[in-house]
Amino acid sequence: MVTLKDVAKAAGVSCSTVSAVLGNRAEKLGIKPETRKLVQRTAARMRYRRNAIAAQMKSGQANTLAMILPEGGTPEFVMRAATAATVEAEKHGCFMKIIAANGKEDFITRLDSVLSQCPAALLHWGKAGERGDYLMSAARECGVPVVFLDFSETIGSGSVRTDDRAGIAQAVEHLYALGHRRIAHVTTFKGERFGDERAEAFLAEMAKRSLPVKTEWIYRDECFRSGGPLVPFLERLFSEPDRPTAVSCGNDLIALRVMTALERQGIRMPEEVSVIGYSDLSFGVACEPELTTIHQPFDRMGETAVKLALDGGEREVLIPTELVVRGSTASPC
Amino acid sequence: MVTLKDVAKAAGVSCSTVSAVLGNRAEKLGIKPETRKLVQRTAARMRYRRNAIAAQMKSGQANTLAMILPEGGTPEFVMRAATAATVEAEKHGCFMKIIAANGKEDFITRLDSVLSQCPAALLHWGKAGERGDYLMSAARECGVPVVFLDFSETIGSGSVRTDDRAGIAQAVEHLYALGHRRIAHVTTFKGERFGDERAEAFLAEMAKRSLPVKTEWIYRDECFRSGGPLVPFLERLFSEPDRPTAVSCGNDLIALRVMTALERQGIRMPEEVSVIGYSDLSFGVACEPELTTIHQPFDRMGETAVKLALDGGEREVLIPTELVVRGSTASPC
Repeated sequence: MVTLKDVAKAAGVSCSTVSAVLGNRAEKLGIKPETRKLVQRTAARMRYRRNAIAAQMKSGQANTLAMILPEGGTPEFVMRAATAATVEAEKHGCFMKIIAANGKEDFITRLDSVLSQCPAALLHWGKAGERGDYLMSAARECGVPVVFLDFSETIGSGSVRTDDRAGIAQAVEHLYALGHRRIAHVTTFKGERFGDERAEAFLAEMAKRSLPVKTEWIYRDECFRSGGPLVPFLERLFSEPDRPTAVSCGNDLIALRVMTALERQGIRMPEEVSVIGYSDLSFGVACEPELTTIHQPFDRMGETAVKLALDGGEREVLIPTELVVRGSTASPC
Repeated sequence: MVTLKDVAKAAGVSCSTVSAVLGNRAEKLGIKPETRKLVQRTAARMRYRRNAIAAQMKSGQANTLAMILPEGGTPEFVMRAATAATVEAEKHGCFMKIIAANGKEDFITRLDSVLSQCPAALLHWGKAGERGDYLMSAARECGVPVVFLDFSETIGSGSVRTDDRAGIAQAVEHLYALGHRRIAHVTTFKGERFGDERAEAFLAEMAKRSLPVKTEWIYRDECFRSGGPLVPFLERLFSEPDRPTAVSCGNDLIALRVMTALERQGIRMPEEVSVIGYSDLSFGVACEPELTTIHQPFDRMGETAVKLALDGGEREVLIPTELVVRGSTASPC
């Protein structure tokens, strides 16, 4: 077994230097980069096993965090948050476990297993749904804080979401500043919480600017089924003489659907109609024109959730969104 | 300090039962699910800190893996592989560190820090480029195996890629089986390794079926710049009397560009022209028609890379792709 002393001897430095370097205190103590590197490399080559985990174990701070992914596939934005959360956890000396469970039974087994390791906190993406009661009662029983991402549970948990009211306000303000006055909003069916929140915010922002909103300009229905009602809706909408000059969409995937439908109607973007998305998924730059959208900082959501979790906080944090102007919006002709 | 004995007493079971349950041997030893749960919950409630890490430390098997993400943003498929790799690592009792470095200096600092913790292996997404020499020599010096994902380094490392030759063969075979004989291929500029490999595979598959390929049917240039040469290329291509009836694309983002351009030319898909993508990114189902594509199993790439890494293997693994038939391909009219 290689000891710290062996490493110090081999590297030709003191034990306290080795300890400082391997404890990530080199910079704080003013140890030169060359020395840091020499010690790290020597320790690695000698396979010295005082690793970060061992040190934390000893000081009783071995922390595990666990992030529970939603069921039924992991969308791009969830993975973005999970990756950022993993990196952030490491900065605090914690390891992130990722729980991707299939079905409630599997979820319970995995959750129980993680809870038996005394995690510092649990992160959960989205509404817990059926799993929610079990999750919250098990976590409470074990005294483990829970932080929800992209969802706000009322009792005994923290939450990190993007400020979607302000995000929609950014979208409407951008279109308004370009000169648009007749704006449609297309989003998912009534009862879907993002659709509800974003549509409400849209109406509030339009009202604030005394802009007219006809009921026929608000689409709340199935957005993704091919042959669904979206295409006929847009055909009707854009055959009116007093048609909208811009469409605000509930998310980028909806914007893609809308752009394709407008294209098929021979409507030029952004000359005749501007389209703005929401989320800033990566395919937006492959749209023609490139999609103007509202950026939801999923990276920051993941980082913030970790910080909040380690605070044990039952707070609600709203992350500001950002307008990303590309080619799909312009002043109306 | 709570001991294993305390947990056993509180749960009313033997010490060996507690040890078996917390060591994940409950199922193997035929311990009932109720007992497993009781023990796990009791341990958690009492904040008993025999956790998985401690046990592995003791047995000298505390393993860390690290995955190095590519520079300049993390695409959807990389995160998919990273998430799957993290879950897979846990199954082997390992923790995955995610390294997202900015610039070479930052990369070196982070790599040195990870290497000083004696990781079981390093995973690296894609070509290491500038970092490559440093990575390989540092890893070699520390005796840590390196596994590349989506890239094959010749010496002293493993690699996990999708079998893109076979993937392109699936695409061409799908179009051929539908009755297409005149097929174009659109991909990135010459010298780009994916473009080169996929274009070569395309030509080989066409030749194998004695199908004609005109040079004007192969696009090798900038695909993403708005106002770039792709749109004029497609306009020329589809104004020919003997035009192709199908387009095979180097990836899904290119397919999106191609679909939009064809739409603008008033060409109906799939009736007049079929389009097939490559990768199976999540926006494909929001295209109209939904995009037929070749699925690259990024999840499996991540899992396989972890297994290969823990094997210490310098092998090259090719993961088979899968044809996903949606609405953008059909028999030619």
